[in-house]
Amino acid sequence: MTQVSKSIDGAQDLGPDYADLDSAVAVDLVAANHILAHNGVLDSFGHVSIRDPRNPNQYLQIQAIAPRDAAISDLITFDLDSNAINARGRPINRERFIHGQIYKMRPDVKAVVHSHSPTVIPFSVTEKPLRAIFHNGHFLGQGTPVWEIRDHAGEQNNMLVLNNELGRSLAEKLGKGSVVLMRGHGNAVAGPDLKTAVFRAIYTEVNAKLQMQAVMLGGPVNFLNEYEQQKLQNVDRPWDTWKKQVGAV
Amino acid sequence: MTQVSKSIDGAQDLGPDYADLDSAVAVDLVAANHILAHNGVLDSFGHVSIRDPRNPNQYLQIQAIAPRDAAISDLITFDLDSNAINARGRPINRERFIHGQIYKMRPDVKAVVHSHSPTVIPFSVTEKPLRAIFHNGHFLGQGTPVWEIRDHAGEQNNMLVLNNELGRSLAEKLGKGSVVLMRGHGNAVAGPDLKTAVFRAIYTEVNAKLQMQAVMLGGPVNFLNEYEQQKLQNVDRPWDTWKKQVGAV
Amino acid sequence: MTQVSKSIDGAQDLGPDYADLDSAVAVDLVAANHILAHNGVLDSFGHVSIRDPRNPNQYLQIQAIAPRDAAISDLITFDLDSNAINARGRPINRERFIHGQIYKMRPDVKAVVHSHSPTVIPFSVTEKPLRAIFHNGHFLGQGTPVWEIRDHAGEQNNMLVLNNELGRSLAEKLGKGSVVLMRGHGNAVAGPDLKTAVFRAIYTEVNAKLQMQAVMLGGPVNFLNEYEQQKLQNVDRPWDTWKKQVGAV
Amino acid sequence: MTQVSKSIDGAQDLGPDYADLDSAVAVDLVAANHILAHNGVLDSFGHVSIRDPRNPNQYLQIQAIAPRDAAISDLITFDLDSNAINARGRPINRERFIHGQIYKMRPDVKAVVHSHSPTVIPFSVTEKPLRAIFHNGHFLGQGTPVWEIRDHAGEQNNMLVLNNELGRSLAEKLGKGSVVLMRGHGNAVAGPDLKTAVFRAIYTEVNAKLQMQAVMLGGPVNFLNEYEQQKLQNVDRPWDTWKKQVGAV
Repeated sequence: MTQVSKSIDGAQDLGPDYADLDSAVAVDLVAANHILAHNGVLDSFGHVSIRDPRNPNQYLQIQAIAPRDAAISDLITFDLDSNAINARGRPINRERFIHGQIYKMRPDVKAVVHSHSPTVIPFSVTEKPLRAIFHNGHFLGQGTPVWEIRDHAGEQNNMLVLNNELGRSLAEKLGKGSVVLMRGHGNAVAGPDLKTAVFRAIYTEVNAKLQMQAVMLGGPVNFLNEYEQQKLQNVDRPWDTWKKQVGAV
Repeated sequence: MTQVSKSIDGAQDLGPDYADLDSAVAVDLVAANHILAHNGVLDSFGHVSIRDPRNPNQYLQIQAIAPRDAAISDLITFDLDSNAINARGRPINRERFIHGQIYKMRPDVKAVVHSHSPTVIPFSVTEKPLRAIFHNGHFLGQGTPVWEIRDHAGEQNNMLVLNNELGRSLAEKLGKGSVVLMRGHGNAVAGPDLKTAVFRAIYTEVNAKLQMQAVMLGGPVNFLNEYEQQKLQNVDRPWDTWKKQVGAV
Repeated sequence: MTQVSKSIDGAQDLGPDYADLDSAVAVDLVAANHILAHNGVLDSFGHVSIRDPRNPNQYLQIQAIAPRDAAISDLITFDLDSNAINARGRPINRERFIHGQIYKMRPDVKAVVHSHSPTVIPFSVTEKPLRAIFHNGHFLGQGTPVWEIRDHAGEQNNMLVLNNELGRSLAEKLGKGSVVLMRGHGNAVAGPDLKTAVFRAIYTEVNAKLQMQAVMLGGPVNFLNEYEQQKLQNVDRPWDTWKKQVGAV
Repeated sequence: MTQVSKSIDGAQDLGPDYADLDSAVAVDLVAANHILAHNGVLDSFGHVSIRDPRNPNQYLQIQAIAPRDAAISDLITFDLDSNAINARGRPINRERFIHGQIYKMRPDVKAVVHSHSPTVIPFSVTEKPLRAIFHNGHFLGQGTPVWEIRDHAGEQNNMLVLNNELGRSLAEKLGKGSVVLMRGHGNAVAGPDLKTAVFRAIYTEVNAKLQMQAVMLGGPVNFLNEYEQQKLQNVDRPWDTWKKQVGAV
């Protein structure tokens, strides 16, 4: 598990670009970076974003640094074609198109996580779908789709979502779901709010571990049924304790 | 493994509701929350309770927050129908009926743990029973029962134990045993005292890991026999060191 | 992994019983307790001992507390029948006969570890022997014996080595080897000095993990041959850094 | 995971031997030792080296201590036959010939890591090659070679690379690749610079875990193809955050 070493100070100045942004929103986005790193979902790579509460045609993400090093001053605004509006020379994530295209196609989505969540990747290169095996993984339903970049960029691809076309095909594969796997790469998670997206990213990894262990035990696996997968989820309780764990207040 | 960040101060005022409660009992219950989180049995969810030493028709549990954040001031008293007696607006665990119904049916039980202990869940959705594979898992005996909520709430259930009827059917499935698995959800552990219940919750997880590894190695597994499962267990030694680990004195 | 929270102070008074004992020896024995806990070999249970350098018919072990809580003042001397010479009311380990009987039968052995080292236990209840799979596990040779308590105490046994007769049968099963597994319980490790015994206890666990993974990968496994298992082992380098890790100097 | 307890101070005096060496280079080499220990690639053993930027016929490595204890004052210079130039009585790694011979045969290589990276070892004793299963393991290509010491030193070998002849045969097995496995022992990783070698050493372990899990899930595994394995890798971002994690600046 990664170690979160920076405290997150909500009182820190957001600067003129974000004078009209609720500072609690910014703190939560920074905290989400730390939480996802602390829980082993994000390593040095991967990113989390929120739809801009001030303008639904924009999203917010930190500059291209390791998530566990995120600070308030790292915020950058993007339009939905993933053009940076205020990068000012700071590096931006090359795969940001994942975020922009999901926001474009899914008005209901307010937060997106792209990760290399480790136990999920094996499900992207084998044939058994990742499915809801316990109640906190309910949002995975009867199976998550796998996006194969070769179907869109051909055999000679570079594995990454480096433009809007690839981002759009990934968003289409996600469809109305919560999670889409990316073959030999990772996954993308969508949520109606930041807390839910973070919860889903973490419990996608947990569910993958449980499913792998069930496969090892052998025999048929008793997955959640179509009704059970609709379980309402309390995400406030884990969010509150995760924030404490990474030193956010 | 979760990190326990709060120290537990036995000298803290318990307030008027608990003026007649031995403060060491309260400290131990708070410590149990931290111990179970620290040992990876409880995550943000799950709960532990004790039968009220002042009145066997009551039990004590913290309010509905993450166990690793538990403090003395979080204590709430419930009757055995799981009505809160002194919540005063604090949130209470929706699945508290697990506790109340086990206390009702089992006068010998003085402490209950409900968890999503990770390695145990795969045994609840596959066909091999979780069994005592090493001496410290002796209390699992020749196999633990699995409670299937569909048998009681139908295919259209919400996976949770949200009322006394479901709690009672779970307690019946537990029977005279120490542990009952809940399909696709978690497990409930009962003990004659808090230390033993905590010991069993932690070693249920350890036993599950060992059994899974034995299955991976292949071939027949040599489980404990019916005599060996009756081993007397020293629980004071692990309890003492676990309390030190979480900063309780 | 357990957390070692106590520093180990070699300058601490050993008391009159140990006035003639090199304090560095005592510090190393206490450090070994912490090292084995820190490396996940010992949990709340298990014990490590050394043959008394002042008298080969005695051995030294801490009182019956969790190894990670060991301090210099916890030392107790035993004769080889495992009678405590200076317990003075302190609790002693019920399975100390493992140590006494190995020292009796094996004059070359100067240190013994008994643990529930987790990945080793599955090899004690299945049919594939634990064998040297990589160079640092060389001392495991072509396979470790498994001691079955039922062969000595019958089906109605209590799983523990609670007397000299059982200890002797365990020592006989160990024979001239370094490690003997105890079915459904743990293992015992012997070494020509404390550093080597600690090294072997830790690398028995590492070797077990590697062997389990090799089994999962499938196909025949290429184990060390009979010449390779005789590799000379540098144990000073890991010992020095392990001592630093647990705060011993 | 090991704990890095020493901070790394770039301002520390390098001494007269390294008056003409950029101190940032020395700090990075020390940091690499800590990073590889912190990420579980190096335990008490293993070593990392860089080709001397002042003289391509030399390489730099710390004295033979545990990597997590490395300090600036531990630096030693070797020629490519692995003779120490300025050891001054300090112990040197017995298997340093791995480094010298790879630098000799591969002018493009500027950094080498030799480790017992745990999940990689099982691939060295079984028959499925370790292959690139996800984008960050691209450098593993269509399979890594396995060096069998018995082919060079016979059945009566001591498992270690203790001379230039064995080092040369290992370097030949590496060929033009990035990683070579050593049967029942570990692996060697080569890179065009230190950051890349460290990245590869860490992601070789990650890739091995993913591949093992994919094997457990069963069925055919969809590995990276020959074009995808050429992916350009950003190593600055993980390097920057890893350095922060171990306290290097």
